[in-house]
Amino acid sequence: MGLTQPFLDPVSDTKPGPRNLITDVPGVTVGQTTIKDGTHNTGVTVIKPAQDNVFLNKLPAAAHVINGFGKSTGLVQVNELGTLETPIVLTNTFAVGTAETALVKAMTADNPDIGNTTGTVNPVIMECNDGDINDIRDISVTEADVQNALANTAESFEEGTVGAGVGMSTYDLKGGIGSASRTIEIDGKPFTMGALVLSNYGFMRDLNIYNEPIGQKLADYKASKKQKEKGSIITILATDIPFNSRQLTRISKRASVGITRTGAFIGNGSGEIVLAFSTANRIAHYPKTELTTQAAISDDKFDRYFRMTVSVVEEAVLSVLTHATTITDRKGQPRLSLKDAIDEYQQDCFDPALERLESKLGL
Amino acid sequence: MGLTQPFLDPVSDTKPGPRNLITDVPGVTVGQTTIKDGTHNTGVTVIKPAQDNVFLNKLPAAAHVINGFGKSTGLVQVNELGTLETPIVLTNTFAVGTAETALVKAMTADNPDIGNTTGTVNPVIMECNDGDINDIRDISVTEADVQNALANTAESFEEGTVGAGVGMSTYDLKGGIGSASRTIEIDGKPFTMGALVLSNYGFMRDLNIYNEPIGQKLADYKASKKQKEKGSIITILATDIPFNSRQLTRISKRASVGITRTGAFIGNGSGEIVLAFSTANRIAHYPKTELTTQAAISDDKFDRYFRMTVSVVEEAVLSVLTHATTITDRKGQPRLSLKDAIDEYQQDCFDPALERLESKLGL
Amino acid sequence: MGLTQPFLDPVSDTKPGPRNLITDVPGVTVGQTTIKDGTHNTGVTVIKPAQDNVFLNKLPAAAHVINGFGKSTGLVQVNELGTLETPIVLTNTFAVGTAETALVKAMTADNPDIGNTTGTVNPVIMECNDGDINDIRDISVTEADVQNALANTAESFEEGTVGAGVGMSTYDLKGGIGSASRTIEIDGKPFTMGALVLSNYGFMRDLNIYNEPIGQKLADYKASKKQKEKGSIITILATDIPFNSRQLTRISKRASVGITRTGAFIGNGSGEIVLAFSTANRIAHYPKTELTTQAAISDDKFDRYFRMTVSVVEEAVLSVLTHATTITDRKGQPRLSLKDAIDEYQQDCFDPALERLESKLGL
Amino acid sequence: MGLTQPFLDPVSDTKPGPRNLITDVPGVTVGQTTIKDGTHNTGVTVIKPAQDNVFLNKLPAAAHVINGFGKSTGLVQVNELGTLETPIVLTNTFAVGTAETALVKAMTADNPDIGNTTGTVNPVIMECNDGDINDIRDISVTEADVQNALANTAESFEEGTVGAGVGMSTYDLKGGIGSASRTIEIDGKPFTMGALVLSNYGFMRDLNIYNEPIGQKLADYKASKKQKEKGSIITILATDIPFNSRQLTRISKRASVGITRTGAFIGNGSGEIVLAFSTANRIAHYPKTELTTQAAISDDKFDRYFRMTVSVVEEAVLSVLTHATTITDRKGQPRLSLKDAIDEYQQDCFDPALERLESKLGL
Repeated sequence: MGLTQPFLDPVSDTKPGPRNLITDVPGVTVGQTTIKDGTHNTGVTVIKPAQDNVFLNKLPAAAHVINGFGKSTGLVQVNELGTLETPIVLTNTFAVGTAETALVKAMTADNPDIGNTTGTVNPVIMECNDGDINDIRDISVTEADVQNALANTAESFEEGTVGAGVGMSTYDLKGGIGSASRTIEIDGKPFTMGALVLSNYGFMRDLNIYNEPIGQKLADYKASKKQKEKGSIITILATDIPFNSRQLTRISKRASVGITRTGAFIGNGSGEIVLAFSTANRIAHYPKTELTTQAAISDDKFDRYFRMTVSVVEEAVLSVLTHATTITDRKGQPRLSLKDAIDEYQQDCFDPALERLESKLGL
Repeated sequence: MGLTQPFLDPVSDTKPGPRNLITDVPGVTVGQTTIKDGTHNTGVTVIKPAQDNVFLNKLPAAAHVINGFGKSTGLVQVNELGTLETPIVLTNTFAVGTAETALVKAMTADNPDIGNTTGTVNPVIMECNDGDINDIRDISVTEADVQNALANTAESFEEGTVGAGVGMSTYDLKGGIGSASRTIEIDGKPFTMGALVLSNYGFMRDLNIYNEPIGQKLADYKASKKQKEKGSIITILATDIPFNSRQLTRISKRASVGITRTGAFIGNGSGEIVLAFSTANRIAHYPKTELTTQAAISDDKFDRYFRMTVSVVEEAVLSVLTHATTITDRKGQPRLSLKDAIDEYQQDCFDPALERLESKLGL
Repeated sequence: MGLTQPFLDPVSDTKPGPRNLITDVPGVTVGQTTIKDGTHNTGVTVIKPAQDNVFLNKLPAAAHVINGFGKSTGLVQVNELGTLETPIVLTNTFAVGTAETALVKAMTADNPDIGNTTGTVNPVIMECNDGDINDIRDISVTEADVQNALANTAESFEEGTVGAGVGMSTYDLKGGIGSASRTIEIDGKPFTMGALVLSNYGFMRDLNIYNEPIGQKLADYKASKKQKEKGSIITILATDIPFNSRQLTRISKRASVGITRTGAFIGNGSGEIVLAFSTANRIAHYPKTELTTQAAISDDKFDRYFRMTVSVVEEAVLSVLTHATTITDRKGQPRLSLKDAIDEYQQDCFDPALERLESKLGL
Repeated sequence: MGLTQPFLDPVSDTKPGPRNLITDVPGVTVGQTTIKDGTHNTGVTVIKPAQDNVFLNKLPAAAHVINGFGKSTGLVQVNELGTLETPIVLTNTFAVGTAETALVKAMTADNPDIGNTTGTVNPVIMECNDGDINDIRDISVTEADVQNALANTAESFEEGTVGAGVGMSTYDLKGGIGSASRTIEIDGKPFTMGALVLSNYGFMRDLNIYNEPIGQKLADYKASKKQKEKGSIITILATDIPFNSRQLTRISKRASVGITRTGAFIGNGSGEIVLAFSTANRIAHYPKTELTTQAAISDDKFDRYFRMTVSVVEEAVLSVLTHATTITDRKGQPRLSLKDAIDEYQQDCFDPALERLESKLGL
């Protein structure tokens, strides 16, 4: 649900949708399976891009790799054909295989033609490494966990330490799932863009929120020594604006501005990948005619959409930080939520700037 | 083992290695699991790029997507970091998830640090759709099948209707696994390049071998009506020439010339993906120093290597056609080997040109 | 005008348009300036994609780099925005700067807003190196030569040793400008695709036409020793099919199949670049609304368009070879036309296969 | 010379070189021609990557397009071959053709083999649109202006309203040329990275320096209404670290973090292009042997270099803003320097935060 006081671009004319979630885009739902038993702290988050059969009615889509230290699957075909034809499954790095098999089974169950009278299907699985908090080597996500998330999607969903986000970290604080949305008028008609991030990136010392270099303060206080980024951030962008695949690529590229606005620099080991889709201009698997007509939008005024993208991604990251809750990592150390980290700091060395920041963030 | 009379580039100074297989590149081995029970006609082919720990000693690598209608995994990271850190597993499209999980387990078993004290690992799984001949919806490849192929690689291996190639087709004839190699002298030193293809592409009518338009003859005879390419071809290129990742990308792009030399046109539904690696200049996962020295090779004389690449890929495809054996497809129809197709044709309408072709191909 | 007996794809349902030239695509015209004084053998070829103001009404477009050993300009913006907003100018490598300045002047003369009340303009100049036949160091193409070609475009134009093609070679024979077209029915409506190539690539020994390895025969006869490809081939594809930019990229990639069908392998020093545009769905520089509708076409049946692309590009290359005429190179040696090379060969060592080939090619 | 108090990354171990300019990288020099007559406010900036013959001894290089609304030339070949073989010329958009011709002439004058006994040369020209301040339609840059800048490069050079930067704007304030450098120890040895930017991008309202949202203050004060980004920013990165071309691409991608740190969002009309080169591992045009050895560096510790890149690019942009001086635009309005804009603001509505900012920036 983003922030209680959403971050608004100083120039932009956009504002959050009713839920301030990716599900403000009509037809988009999210389902999650949370696994949290102390040793296994992981899970699955599914984004359904539409409620009808997305294999039969594909969606225009594009993937953009900001930094390719990542193991997401399905991107090759998304970029060749410019289409998404399955729900998107987010999970941990070593559960990708299980998730792929589960998604193939779900798709073939719904579509008797797949692998039979027509071709195969392109499953999109995206991931981050939650190995600091989850025993990732002991592959604990099951096909049933994925099927469960696929079968139970809704317009409302939790953010923070849930689903695929259970074991993730952000700026060395507790990370996970975050989401936000923006609405905009185009030629007098309302449209929505939503973002959902699986956030597992960043060094504490770099964290900067609303021009407050809070990361330096927290890192000095904790004497943080973390040397090496091993995280990642997956960004899903959904919209009902009739962008084509090329335009969705351009939109995706602006996600990196939203991701780095809080201070990150795109680390070597950070798999940063964006997948964007539009719910307009669905593409038939069995087209009745070759020639059709489509809604289209000019690139000429894209600055508005780029600003909206930066803004919705930045807020989705902040929403991770404000919703995630403290968890114990594999070494028995607490991975603090932003609120707990600030509270700890404030008890020892009170700083009015951090009090103002907590207030702005609704913590 | 390529062809009995290898196809040699008219200009090039290269000739096949002792086995005329990808395993002529020192250190490279291949293992296969063949599943052939009438309903399930599929399998696994593994290429081990080196015999030591490839996670600890990665190989320079590059992936090139000729046409991205495919579901291979691991390519994003290969292209970002320019390295390969696992064996390559080939299988059918819907077994990719199982293969990924099996490969993750094999890698974590060998490397206690992965997902524990160091990051994760990037499994490379590549695939074609064998749904015409294999009941692909009933996912029959198991993790054990993959582990078996991983555990039993060798320098000698079978081509044709084996491993991942059991259910594949090529130019509407029986396809599968093929391999060839070339040796070359550089500055007086011997080097080798090998290709292995998982070949499942092409329309019969387009097939052209040694300037003989055999596909037109066979297709007219069979009144072949196949309208739509649903195949793919995966090409693995191995070499001990010290190419860097950028150069391996350039080399990979020439595979498409070898693939289309037999008449194909890169169909819409054909996933054509190339992965190339060099066994020179291994890259330490835990480097002792940041600065090192490497063997390097000038781009200036690349025409020789490009010719070698075209030639070795073309011969690997021909080796598929000459080694594959007739199988019954899911509709109960024979998917004929090239030899059986020509023999059938010759019985009805003898053509001396085809007799000469069979002789050249050693059929 | 392509070939007198056009090469037809054995599967395809396409046939040449009335002129068998790129100008069969409605609205497309070509203009050329030929410079041929013995020392300076070079020129300019211009393709006008439409007869109205293409800056105000841009065209969907895409560029594809097969091998980037080339100096073409304007491709970055074509691929970012997916549009072409100027005529395309072809010339020699060192005349690119002059051509760019001339094209900027032509565009600003026609558009008082450019660089004044609106942004700038993206000139597209493409080139090959004619240094074997032309004194390229003595930059002889003038802005007036470019303006002349821009001002004198027409639906009919010469092929062979004309315009930008004067000093070019193909398979070590005389190269230059070639063109062909194909028509196709889609949902009952007629459409056209045209190709124009500036061809300066290939080793003689590789040349293969209609399954006749004529290059080996000619090269053995001439004892050709050429070691190093320094050529290039520029391919322009025009169509009135409503492809979007992503689809035009896919189409462009198939040009390489047409280019290599005659035996080439994409040499290291060969700059092989394709630019494709559609005359459908023009894009307003000053859009009245952001939202519009467009004609669109499904990727599902693209095999037809890919075949058409391969076929029209292959024929455009053959049309270069059949139209180009013998010229004297900078060393005083004749750069033979295909016809003169065959005739010379036939006088010494008559080969009935070459006589049949000449007949097929209308030589 | 960057800032008087350089911006230092809070984590990084890097500090500016002796000049805090790109010329701190040994061998790199810069030359400029400034044209400033009231109507024509433009010029040329040249970066010489080395003092010997760069055609004969090329440099490893890579280009990265952040947003491709730009007309730079030469990038196709830089990315194919991974090499730079000429000085880099920066100028205005419509002077690219003139600059290309001048650079070709300079290169052929120095290299009698180019276009004669060897191939051609790949000129790299990069540009921004200075049309707000310069009468760009009246192409005023001459070949002599380019030759002059090429002939007069040095280790020390001016920043701000000079060379190609005369007519450029940044965040609607006066922009232009800026530079900075960083030194770092690798395995005990000292290395340097330098950046030079031609900065012409950004909306005033977005400007944020050292966590001070100065752009909002200035824009509210000026009631700035600028709606549309028409700018660009060209970034040149030089280093003596032995990065290969793939690694230089990864480095280049982090420039966008430095560019957006001051608040920008990569606008639709902003051509943002990065070219990076290394002075290590020079590549012979006429290699004596094919096989060589090279210095190499592991990707494993790249976080340090990524941080250094972000930091040096951010400081180069700030150096533009602190060095550029107020100029009159084509409409007769002042395009204020940052200092003049702050001073004007402070006279009317004094803000202590801006006084602190001026002090930090040495204004």
